[in-house]
Amino acid sequence: MKLFEERGYEGTTVADIAERAGLTKRTFFRYFTDKREVLFSGTEIFEGTVIKGVLDAPAKASPLDAVAAGLDASAVVFEQIPDRAGKRQALLDANPELQERERAKLAGLSGSVAAALRERGVTEPAAGLAADAGMSVLRVAFERWTTDPHGQDLRKLLRDALAELKSVTA
Amino acid sequence: MKLFEERGYEGTTVADIAERAGLTKRTFFRYFTDKREVLFSGTEIFEGTVIKGVLDAPAKASPLDAVAAGLDASAVVFEQIPDRAGKRQALLDANPELQERERAKLAGLSGSVAAALRERGVTEPAAGLAADAGMSVLRVAFERWTTDPHGQDLRKLLRDALAELKSVTA
Repeated sequence: MKLFEERGYEGTTVADIAERAGLTKRTFFRYFTDKREVLFSGTEIFEGTVIKGVLDAPAKASPLDAVAAGLDASAVVFEQIPDRAGKRQALLDANPELQERERAKLAGLSGSVAAALRERGVTEPAAGLAADAGMSVLRVAFERWTTDPHGQDLRKLLRDALAELKSVTA
Repeated sequence: MKLFEERGYEGTTVADIAERAGLTKRTFFRYFTDKREVLFSGTEIFEGTVIKGVLDAPAKASPLDAVAAGLDASAVVFEQIPDRAGKRQALLDANPELQERERAKLAGLSGSVAAALRERGVTEPAAGLAADAGMSVLRVAFERWTTDPHGQDLRKLLRDALAELKSVTA
């Protein structure tokens, strides 16, 4: 992340990253499929937290409320790394190829969340629709949060965005 | 599309496609940035129809109803090419790299729809949330429709998916 800041995302090579991290290029590629993936390390932790939150939601929770519980549980992951999250967002805003990967990751997360909802007994298309809605809420809240990661409460922003979605679809 | 059916998507090269179409590779690349784009030709027509439908919706329509009007207007584009739509979906289902491009296109469409809503005076985040919700509705309806493009009415499937979304977020 530091290298991307110093040299720009485009100007940083895998060799540069590996050298800074004290790795060979070969070892680098054992951990990351490409340069873009460096910015998506930790995605699995985040995804695991969301899924656990969905599965642990009260049995009576609606599909969308179960998704909201998952997002709420995951907010703590980001709140531990506000600076990284802000810098990462700035890189994404500036690079369409990173945005494409981000969208693919969110689509993957949506699929996993839908699967977790089906485990809770939710049928399709409700599971997929609720999962997509959650990703939309996450995107809106996250964009707001990363403009000032120290000044705002991500969990409150998630609740606000969910209320706004409900009002839009009412 | 025919070549992809005959040889599989992976087994078809740009040279094969250009030859079948009577083009040089150079001319091919004037029209398409890569092989994947062949399956996304016509996206601009579809997008233009959706945007026009959003802008032409009654002034009193809610943001989500304006998006629904755009999707409804665009259904006619797909209904003219049911066989192509079905075969294309089968290719997408089998190729993760095509799915990634499809998601990127849908995200781009969502951005354009949100911009059209802002032209109608809708503010953020309502515009982005309504646009995302529309893409989710489109995905669900389209997946159902392409399993049997001749037997089902896409516009009805769009209305059904919208009703399901409203019920999920109620």
